[in-house]
Amino acid sequence: MVSREPSGRPFVASLIGFGYWGPNLARNLSVSRDFNLKYISDVSSDRLESARHLYGTTVCLKDPVATFSDPEVDVVLVATPASTHFELCREALEHGKHVLVEKPLTLDSISSQALVQLAKRRGLILAVDHTFVFTGAVRKLRELVACGELGVLRYFDSIRVNLGVVQPDIDVLWDLAVHDLSILQFVTDRVPVAVSATGSAHEPSTQMSTAYMTLFYDDDFIAHIGTSWMSPVKIRRSLLAGSRQMVVYDDQDVGQQVKLFDSGIETSSPPVVDHGRLVQTRVGDMLAPKVDTREALTVELEHLAACLRGEEELIVPGESGLDIVCVLEAATRSLDQHGSPSQVGGRGA
Amino acid sequence: MVSREPSGRPFVASLIGFGYWGPNLARNLSVSRDFNLKYISDVSSDRLESARHLYGTTVCLKDPVATFSDPEVDVVLVATPASTHFELCREALEHGKHVLVEKPLTLDSISSQALVQLAKRRGLILAVDHTFVFTGAVRKLRELVACGELGVLRYFDSIRVNLGVVQPDIDVLWDLAVHDLSILQFVTDRVPVAVSATGSAHEPSTQMSTAYMTLFYDDDFIAHIGTSWMSPVKIRRSLLAGSRQMVVYDDQDVGQQVKLFDSGIETSSPPVVDHGRLVQTRVGDMLAPKVDTREALTVELEHLAACLRGEEELIVPGESGLDIVCVLEAATRSLDQHGSPSQVGGRGA
Amino acid sequence: MVSREPSGRPFVASLIGFGYWGPNLARNLSVSRDFNLKYISDVSSDRLESARHLYGTTVCLKDPVATFSDPEVDVVLVATPASTHFELCREALEHGKHVLVEKPLTLDSISSQALVQLAKRRGLILAVDHTFVFTGAVRKLRELVACGELGVLRYFDSIRVNLGVVQPDIDVLWDLAVHDLSILQFVTDRVPVAVSATGSAHEPSTQMSTAYMTLFYDDDFIAHIGTSWMSPVKIRRSLLAGSRQMVVYDDQDVGQQVKLFDSGIETSSPPVVDHGRLVQTRVGDMLAPKVDTREALTVELEHLAACLRGEEELIVPGESGLDIVCVLEAATRSLDQHGSPSQVGGRGA
Amino acid sequence: MVSREPSGRPFVASLIGFGYWGPNLARNLSVSRDFNLKYISDVSSDRLESARHLYGTTVCLKDPVATFSDPEVDVVLVATPASTHFELCREALEHGKHVLVEKPLTLDSISSQALVQLAKRRGLILAVDHTFVFTGAVRKLRELVACGELGVLRYFDSIRVNLGVVQPDIDVLWDLAVHDLSILQFVTDRVPVAVSATGSAHEPSTQMSTAYMTLFYDDDFIAHIGTSWMSPVKIRRSLLAGSRQMVVYDDQDVGQQVKLFDSGIETSSPPVVDHGRLVQTRVGDMLAPKVDTREALTVELEHLAACLRGEEELIVPGESGLDIVCVLEAATRSLDQHGSPSQVGGRGA
Repeated sequence: MVSREPSGRPFVASLIGFGYWGPNLARNLSVSRDFNLKYISDVSSDRLESARHLYGTTVCLKDPVATFSDPEVDVVLVATPASTHFELCREALEHGKHVLVEKPLTLDSISSQALVQLAKRRGLILAVDHTFVFTGAVRKLRELVACGELGVLRYFDSIRVNLGVVQPDIDVLWDLAVHDLSILQFVTDRVPVAVSATGSAHEPSTQMSTAYMTLFYDDDFIAHIGTSWMSPVKIRRSLLAGSRQMVVYDDQDVGQQVKLFDSGIETSSPPVVDHGRLVQTRVGDMLAPKVDTREALTVELEHLAACLRGEEELIVPGESGLDIVCVLEAATRSLDQHGSPSQVGGRGA
Repeated sequence: MVSREPSGRPFVASLIGFGYWGPNLARNLSVSRDFNLKYISDVSSDRLESARHLYGTTVCLKDPVATFSDPEVDVVLVATPASTHFELCREALEHGKHVLVEKPLTLDSISSQALVQLAKRRGLILAVDHTFVFTGAVRKLRELVACGELGVLRYFDSIRVNLGVVQPDIDVLWDLAVHDLSILQFVTDRVPVAVSATGSAHEPSTQMSTAYMTLFYDDDFIAHIGTSWMSPVKIRRSLLAGSRQMVVYDDQDVGQQVKLFDSGIETSSPPVVDHGRLVQTRVGDMLAPKVDTREALTVELEHLAACLRGEEELIVPGESGLDIVCVLEAATRSLDQHGSPSQVGGRGA
Repeated sequence: MVSREPSGRPFVASLIGFGYWGPNLARNLSVSRDFNLKYISDVSSDRLESARHLYGTTVCLKDPVATFSDPEVDVVLVATPASTHFELCREALEHGKHVLVEKPLTLDSISSQALVQLAKRRGLILAVDHTFVFTGAVRKLRELVACGELGVLRYFDSIRVNLGVVQPDIDVLWDLAVHDLSILQFVTDRVPVAVSATGSAHEPSTQMSTAYMTLFYDDDFIAHIGTSWMSPVKIRRSLLAGSRQMVVYDDQDVGQQVKLFDSGIETSSPPVVDHGRLVQTRVGDMLAPKVDTREALTVELEHLAACLRGEEELIVPGESGLDIVCVLEAATRSLDQHGSPSQVGGRGA
Repeated sequence: MVSREPSGRPFVASLIGFGYWGPNLARNLSVSRDFNLKYISDVSSDRLESARHLYGTTVCLKDPVATFSDPEVDVVLVATPASTHFELCREALEHGKHVLVEKPLTLDSISSQALVQLAKRRGLILAVDHTFVFTGAVRKLRELVACGELGVLRYFDSIRVNLGVVQPDIDVLWDLAVHDLSILQFVTDRVPVAVSATGSAHEPSTQMSTAYMTLFYDDDFIAHIGTSWMSPVKIRRSLLAGSRQMVVYDDQDVGQQVKLFDSGIETSSPPVVDHGRLVQTRVGDMLAPKVDTREALTVELEHLAACLRGEEELIVPGESGLDIVCVLEAATRSLDQHGSPSQVGGRGA
């Protein structure tokens, strides 16, 4: 990647969407010295009005089209409903803009694939905003796995439930499980081969609001993700169990988000037979390592700027976003068949 | 059921099995005024030795056969490995003894069915020890559902994981999910029509140690159960979500095991369209009702005695145990097919 | 109080201090439609620089003097170290400005008294920023007490500890206990008569970093506050126990910050003597009422604007700040004598 | 101490008191191979009746006098109300019996002193049942302090509250703080020089039901203990803060009762002056070491037997019990004076 800003001038940014996530991007862009937030656009007049009130020096407009043709703009940040991602990203890339797009990349693998190829052809950055990957906790998880602390990985189990907004255009897997899938992908560097998913739309003619998926791999490792918009209690907790140690990541356990358990299950060797029990559990110490507590989005935007300058390699490129869209597509097929396993299409599929 | 003990004489009991659960039965029987624990039998000399040390006045013997033919014995309590349940229960029933048997009733629906019919023919009590049903918390849950507090039931989600004993003869669903199935059955009085299950045996040639199942019903209600012997953190928590209220049962949250949330998801009527969102979440008060904290086994044995005296009707008869065996059988079939849904056989299937 | 802004024009504000708390005031003022943040001043060039970066349209300057003489300025917000409060507030009031000042009002009752009288003479608002009083949780507490739910108040117990900044000019009681004192004052409307305080400065020549105080009243009610800058675990929890019910306020228990326990201690009447025990405990349901989750500072600034318009009466006037300074003075005297009780001076003392 | 049981014969025990704690002693004695529980005595017929039901082979009688003169009896265990301890222990010691007595040793230092001297003269064991000292968690705490992990000890802060039995003959400090004092004594091996205590009797003519004490030492170390019988939430948590590390012991946090925080407060050297702040806080990893989870009473009785055999030295001799009685006496004096500090009398005072 070629350095684009040798002079250190901030990158000029255009933010599209000022609904749920857009304001977080705007807040971070406005205090960052790497970016200059020139435009905010949104289809809602009310939301534009509050953007104007907050960011006096930023141009706020309804239609983002004008910002695509502004030659000053370096990067477009897309924070609109998922169904609009493909068109907006394509437009931006075709105008030669780098792109950071909200998850999921698009709503199907064909369009995601198209964006990946378009960005590649044009030599542009297409980054997917898998924010959790930039938390100190998830980076610590990756570190623990990479250095072999956990031993052979056995299973991953993640829960992400709350009393949330019921989305009109995507179901709970595409809305929430995408986070767990991105964490799992980043931490383990593994790709699943098949998915079994189940769920229920608890209100007539609405999206699935509670859903579960099991990911199968080419060995005994499995991953399970449970999601719901209908839980009165908010839970965001992942477990990654290895043969030697196990690690729990609880997003809400402030001060000890990551807990490493020196516990495990061991096959006796030679096996001690006690009524046929060949397997022993072992309970040991627990360590909660200190984790970086900076806001994930701040870290992510610093990384994006470094990539734009050619100093770092993109952590979540379009390809990663595409992989996750492929898993979600398989999950949707399985959901329609009450859990029958569905193969995960590959990048080249 | 005819009262058998008008005189108030305690029922004479023979306990088979003094491994994990047997000592709890023995401790409760020994302090109960309803029972007289005449026999304890176990195949292990060590375990018999500790039984002898604890219960000086009880006859401890290796083979339970003698106790079947003792005409004084009223009731046989079977707390041995699941694979031995069928033979021991059959024998006891054929000798005219009432039976309380550990969960699961047996390892397949045919043998479970046979025991149910045998008990019926002989006019004997065949009770299955679904202990959780006798906790104050689960009884409170049933009460809340029965009085309509929750509205239309939407879904049930239960987690039961710890770093547990890896069983030699049954997998984690037959060992742990059986508890959640019995709670679900008792609280909702509903029978599932199909099951999708997934899981993994994390060690070569051992039982499934982490497994998940989704139960489908004849409407939109679903139930999901997650179980593992490989979690460093112990969790035993169930959520039952209704259209009006939701209730969480956390076995480990001492002092507030049951929490009733006045929260829900509501379809607007007439629908207010905000970018297509027709559904609203509502957060309200939370109530943690006081629950009876007596040991479940104490309550269960009082109930058993009342049934033996003909004063109460059995809460967990063999039929309930059979229903759960049918669900577990279907889950095992689905597990073998990576989540493909499997029909649940009925009592008469 | 006379309405000052019939036209609805926002009040012009000057913020002094952009260290720890100032940025929160600035952020809230900048999005409020009631205020126009015209000035930010701070002695540190670095902090001014970040203020400038964040609030492009606000004048940022080192010395606040100029802002006192700007006739446009309606209200001065003082968020500087406590030792500078008296001078800055006096100056602002003498220039006819309304004032909102960080807690504690000043470092001694004589100067606090002087400010209260000055504001009164000039007919100006002198508000003390006891922020916790504006949380939904504390307002709920006041409501519960006011409607008599708790019965006769028995005791208040509050803990506020973390691994915090060790202040150079005030000890941990003046820094942290001031919050608990303001909560207690607001919730119970009671004034203590004496204080016993103990503590320790854990590093040579620094302020007390762990300290405790017991407040005595003219009846059997007592209050205890424990504070520390040296706790590895952050705790912010208060208990108010009444004869009928008890309420716990845990600032960190998201989703159930307020818990009302229908539990109590009751004197039997007529007394049942069981080995001389005349008193019974009672455990009942627990209710966690929904509380307003808006940011306290937002609510507080809305209230301030309403007071400036003459629509509401000040909830935390200078007199309340003075009362708390009197308690803290007494605590400091007691601390010097290892807990010997010290009388609390009154407003007119 | 001379070995008394070279043959390995179990020690013959007489238990006095079968109220709250006695049954726990009986249960442990009955399964121990070190002891033979020959007698249980209690003034209440009901309690004797349940003892008889549970321990068929033990002689149950109202008056313990007969057991003192039984030459077979080696050791008398006193689990009666505190006001009866002195007479029962004296009697037992005078009959040449070893004694294990419930906490507190007696209700005043003169009588405690007398028992200590009597036991010494007769060469008998006088052990005080400070049970918490035998938990795995508290033993781990002592280990951490002993090996210097924590650095210089700064302060100890302990809370022990619940909705408990209001005692007729002792206040909440003598009932509950005695546990924290014994933990503090065992872990730090330090003796306080003065105490400030405050509290309130929330019901007319009853004992203090909520009370606090601060212990002063001959350096900057302080300890604070808060106790109540009137808290709807049960808390049993102690913090020991050192200059290098801090440790939290939470009796109810199953699985991580002991947490070691690599956090601290450090004086910069050479000091970096930032607005006069010379002191920095440091947040690091947290380690929850595995602790022995055996029941404390089991460990304690094994230790008692080892002491009786002359194999170990008594961990909690009468002298330790006396030291704690001296602290409690000073606390009572201070309570009467609303927190005025009171000197702690020594063993020879």
